Amino acid sequence: MQIGMIGIGKMGGNMSRRLMKAGHHCVVYARTAKTREALAKDGATAATSIADLVSKLSDKPRAIWLMLPAGKVTEEMVEQLSGILERDDIVIDGGNSFYKDDIRNAKKLALKGIHYVDCGTSGGVWGIERGYCMMIGGPKQAVDRLDPIFSALAPGTGVIARTPDRASGDSRPERGYIHAGPSGAGHFVKMVHNGIEYGMMQAYAEGFDILRHKDSKDLPQDERFVLNMPDIAEVWRRGSVISSWLLDLGAAALAKDPQLKTYSGFVQDSGEGRWTVQAAIEEAVPADVLTSALYARFRSRQEHTFGEKMLSAMRFGFGGHLEGKEPIDPEPAKQTAGRVAAQDAAE
Amino acid sequence: MQIGMIGIGKMGGNMSRRLMKAGHHCVVYARTAKTREALAKDGATAATSIADLVSKLSDKPRAIWLMLPAGKVTEEMVEQLSGILERDDIVIDGGNSFYKDDIRNAKKLALKGIHYVDCGTSGGVWGIERGYCMMIGGPKQAVDRLDPIFSALAPGTGVIARTPDRASGDSRPERGYIHAGPSGAGHFVKMVHNGIEYGMMQAYAEGFDILRHKDSKDLPQDERFVLNMPDIAEVWRRGSVISSWLLDLGAAALAKDPQLKTYSGFVQDSGEGRWTVQAAIEEAVPADVLTSALYARFRSRQEHTFGEKMLSAMRFGFGGHLEGKEPIDPEPAKQTAGRVAAQDAAE
Amino acid sequence: MQIGMIGIGKMGGNMSRRLMKAGHHCVVYARTAKTREALAKDGATAATSIADLVSKLSDKPRAIWLMLPAGKVTEEMVEQLSGILERDDIVIDGGNSFYKDDIRNAKKLALKGIHYVDCGTSGGVWGIERGYCMMIGGPKQAVDRLDPIFSALAPGTGVIARTPDRASGDSRPERGYIHAGPSGAGHFVKMVHNGIEYGMMQAYAEGFDILRHKDSKDLPQDERFVLNMPDIAEVWRRGSVISSWLLDLGAAALAKDPQLKTYSGFVQDSGEGRWTVQAAIEEAVPADVLTSALYARFRSRQEHTFGEKMLSAMRFGFGGHLEGKEPIDPEPAKQTAGRVAAQDAAE
Amino acid sequence: MQIGMIGIGKMGGNMSRRLMKAGHHCVVYARTAKTREALAKDGATAATSIADLVSKLSDKPRAIWLMLPAGKVTEEMVEQLSGILERDDIVIDGGNSFYKDDIRNAKKLALKGIHYVDCGTSGGVWGIERGYCMMIGGPKQAVDRLDPIFSALAPGTGVIARTPDRASGDSRPERGYIHAGPSGAGHFVKMVHNGIEYGMMQAYAEGFDILRHKDSKDLPQDERFVLNMPDIAEVWRRGSVISSWLLDLGAAALAKDPQLKTYSGFVQDSGEGRWTVQAAIEEAVPADVLTSALYARFRSRQEHTFGEKMLSAMRFGFGGHLEGKEPIDPEPAKQTAGRVAAQDAAE
Repeated sequence: MQIGMIGIGKMGGNMSRRLMKAGHHCVVYARTAKTREALAKDGATAATSIADLVSKLSDKPRAIWLMLPAGKVTEEMVEQLSGILERDDIVIDGGNSFYKDDIRNAKKLALKGIHYVDCGTSGGVWGIERGYCMMIGGPKQAVDRLDPIFSALAPGTGVIARTPDRASGDSRPERGYIHAGPSGAGHFVKMVHNGIEYGMMQAYAEGFDILRHKDSKDLPQDERFVLNMPDIAEVWRRGSVISSWLLDLGAAALAKDPQLKTYSGFVQDSGEGRWTVQAAIEEAVPADVLTSALYARFRSRQEHTFGEKMLSAMRFGFGGHLEGKEPIDPEPAKQTAGRVAAQDAAE
Repeated sequence: MQIGMIGIGKMGGNMSRRLMKAGHHCVVYARTAKTREALAKDGATAATSIADLVSKLSDKPRAIWLMLPAGKVTEEMVEQLSGILERDDIVIDGGNSFYKDDIRNAKKLALKGIHYVDCGTSGGVWGIERGYCMMIGGPKQAVDRLDPIFSALAPGTGVIARTPDRASGDSRPERGYIHAGPSGAGHFVKMVHNGIEYGMMQAYAEGFDILRHKDSKDLPQDERFVLNMPDIAEVWRRGSVISSWLLDLGAAALAKDPQLKTYSGFVQDSGEGRWTVQAAIEEAVPADVLTSALYARFRSRQEHTFGEKMLSAMRFGFGGHLEGKEPIDPEPAKQTAGRVAAQDAAE
Repeated sequence: MQIGMIGIGKMGGNMSRRLMKAGHHCVVYARTAKTREALAKDGATAATSIADLVSKLSDKPRAIWLMLPAGKVTEEMVEQLSGILERDDIVIDGGNSFYKDDIRNAKKLALKGIHYVDCGTSGGVWGIERGYCMMIGGPKQAVDRLDPIFSALAPGTGVIARTPDRASGDSRPERGYIHAGPSGAGHFVKMVHNGIEYGMMQAYAEGFDILRHKDSKDLPQDERFVLNMPDIAEVWRRGSVISSWLLDLGAAALAKDPQLKTYSGFVQDSGEGRWTVQAAIEEAVPADVLTSALYARFRSRQEHTFGEKMLSAMRFGFGGHLEGKEPIDPEPAKQTAGRVAAQDAAE
Repeated sequence: MQIGMIGIGKMGGNMSRRLMKAGHHCVVYARTAKTREALAKDGATAATSIADLVSKLSDKPRAIWLMLPAGKVTEEMVEQLSGILERDDIVIDGGNSFYKDDIRNAKKLALKGIHYVDCGTSGGVWGIERGYCMMIGGPKQAVDRLDPIFSALAPGTGVIARTPDRASGDSRPERGYIHAGPSGAGHFVKMVHNGIEYGMMQAYAEGFDILRHKDSKDLPQDERFVLNMPDIAEVWRRGSVISSWLLDLGAAALAKDPQLKTYSGFVQDSGEGRWTVQAAIEEAVPADVLTSALYARFRSRQEHTFGEKMLSAMRFGFGGHLEGKEPIDPEPAKQTAGRVAAQDAAE
């Protein structure tokens, strides 16, 4: 079928290519001419403006897929389209929007009879080959109409083993996409997906950190090991309980750079991790692991927190310690490095 | 090659079967006659005592694999074997022993020239088919001699995609086992593996909890979704960033029992999760996620903690609240359920 | 000076009494006649409606203090008053409102020239004697005009030792109240105060939990202690680093009920704890302790989480464990209670 | 009474002075002549060696108080004294020893009829004036004999209000010391005390961090506040629920240095925090807050963890992000700083 695609960066571009390979026709727009022309060479019809894109969508009702930064950019595009599109057209937000924004956007478009579909999309730069895992929210009628698109983007059943005991008549989950519920439900499920991703990544990160420091000089001599990170990551891919796609990526990174010197350790977080914690709090669900994973990223971006200085200040108050990178009082350090001076006894 | 196998429960029995299928000869012992006879029917030689098992191992130097409960049971068996075995024999501890016990056991056996090899084994009840992922510690000479055994137990390269950029000349990690380092290193790596497993499981657990409670009556009407747990687990197996073997298991459980009514929610922990946290502390490595995952299991086994009563007691102290399952003061509850009474303002 | 007081429950009533004792005149309103008459007996002027209260405030511009449940109730009262009050009157919200509500309310009232002051109030049921600690937000002019009120409610310098090196010309903090900033700043500081309170309470709770379980049968005989909770709480009040008012309350509870049998362990949370975590996330500040303290309360209100069942389900998947309150497989349990069966080795 | 004091640094010296002020006679030893002579000027008898100190203790049975670094130094001193002292003499370990070391030391000395008393001591550099809070373990007979010493070191009832409902006949807790139980119980209770201290300090630290960053440019303009840290700390000392001695110290630090520029934010931890977490794990008690507080200190001492690099490496794997301190892809940053690019959508 014919589909408009607004936002054809790394993600949107690859998705267009996967759609075209499956025989769909993409009318694409990006602000940069070079970007849209590159995709035109691969078979897309390039539009020079939003209006141009809409006019080039000859099959009605139309379907337009947005792959834009979440928040203001997406919101403004929805606003703009609501002035141009017609009754029964569909806008799909395939980006990482906050699900409460979806609920609001859907209501706004519904007033004009335009359908809004939110689609959380997972798969990263690999999706063009592996297919995209999609979690979709919105009215049944619109989701059903878009089925050829979702079906083409999804991985399909492929080589992944079937889950035993699945009795559901709906084959879509096994082909890699679900209609999760009404507007917002798609991005909500995708949001929790990313929250889980943070937790899993942090679990690996802490585990490798513990392995890495097993050669610490603070440990007794015969309890120190110099462990081979790339080999450990590799072996865990093979029959262990913790094999996963994230581990595959970690193993690839370690194989190339065993000390991970390429990476600064300054870790960004995107909205989903934060929103997942907020959702947990709204529901009064304890989410210790997902939250710790988020905070570890916050902490990674600071040299020292004000809180840590506050700790030092209080410690100075009761113990007279002024903390630098070296112990202050030379005598106890001389005796037994790393041990606690009796002077600290009074904490 | 010939190998003795002590402890042939669910794990040890399956491993024996996989070894025999690969052409190895297993001499097996279990306290229960019925257990060892069952394995004899599948081709093993059953021994009626430890001494009998040792005497039936005709190829010298011998190799004996222990698959016993960690701690006292394993320790006593090592002690017993050290009195019977001969120079250059090998004892393999394939159970879940604490790596510091390995270091001690290895030293003890080394006095008699007996080799001790610790082997952390992952794979669960599925290992008989999928193969076992093994992390091995001990002297090179002994580990190399056992290579046919490890090679047979391991999954082999199979269908799992190769990691790009692996330049290591050692093919073992790709076939599912590593020689991690000296005595204790195998179980140490396996221990961290299980620590990571706890963290990953907790990440999924929290995520599904947040999905499950998205229909909570405390949420605004249009932000409530009734989500389909089995379908979500299934779709995440297909091209998403969080696909993993643990998720496969979770999806299977949810397919069979969408509300998980079969399960009490009372969750055991084994030693590895605890030891991983202790290792983190000894190395001064922050391990928030792995620790939270452990604590969630501790908490799952209590109805109410003394600490929670302490919280209630302090709250009563400053606010005069006596906490039951229902709010005490009827009036504010009537007005706006779930909201904070002004009486609380003074906390 | 003259002040209107709307909401005279436990907190508002006590505050009125403290104000009257200091010579101020309170015009009070509560929905229940009995409540307002009780206060009238102590010297207040009882009003039978909001309109009546406003009309009885003869000194203009007026000042009206709200001590109501946060959220809808307070919001509606502000709305109602905005229709009755006159330019330059002041509304003080002394409850536990969300600071973003204050910012909005202040803007709404400012359109009519009415001042809005938000006042976070700490002190609980003890405030009538000890005085209230107040954190105030709003326009300087209004805050200054109310100074006699704040000064009377605050504890004053009392017997609390002066902080060395305080050079600030502002004596208010030392007397127990601050003008924290513009609208919302008062409740924001109070919100963080409560967040810290959660963290401190949880620190004590966990500590006493560890003390309480030091007689656990899982510990080696000579490492078990039966500790005296009331005596420990008492001694820590005396010269220790962790003495605090919360500890005083805990010690009082333990003195009366050493096993805390009076308390269910079902712990409520009010909005501030949640909002503090949300503020941390908005600011990208890691707040592990404050968040864990909140989650411990969430968890205390459930028997078992869906997440815990998910853990059990995954464990069943790889290990064949079906978890009940008793171990399933009798044999390993017989050998060494609490230990890990070799069957688990494959996790 | 007469007492030997070994280790007269900041803590031991002050304690000796407090004892002498109460009329006790101290025979003191430190390796540095200057240190012991300083105390001799204040009335102590200086000994030039351990043997000399023992010989100068004329009242038998003797009592010797150790105030030394925990671990090897204390252990060796106990060993040395066990060879010199006589039946019925008492050794008191007033430092920060691990309680399991106490249990072992006590057994060793008991073989010679020497009593071992472990005394956890809180109070810091302020103890000389305020008195020391003491938690004592060991045989009743020895603890009772030392009562004059403990009584003199303790704060006494002082001005601190009595806890209502205390019915215990034992007045010692109210005077600032307890006999907690058998050997090790004193240091165990002190250990948990310090664990709680870590948790409380971290609660304050996080709270002030949230206050401090309320002026962040990532927040909407009308939700930013520049808050006065010293004034907030001060006002919370006055009638609020979170007043405490730790807050007094924090307020003093902030009064002197509102930005805490004096402090590096590199925070040490001593053994007790770690041991408390280990105790929690041995007892299967969830201790999220105490553990997070410990980990925050671990984290404060590193620039970037290996784990954080691992996170970046995995992120690079699925999203193609290479993380530096600045966002890589200029375009999305230009549009909406801090927002998520659609390219990230596929995580």
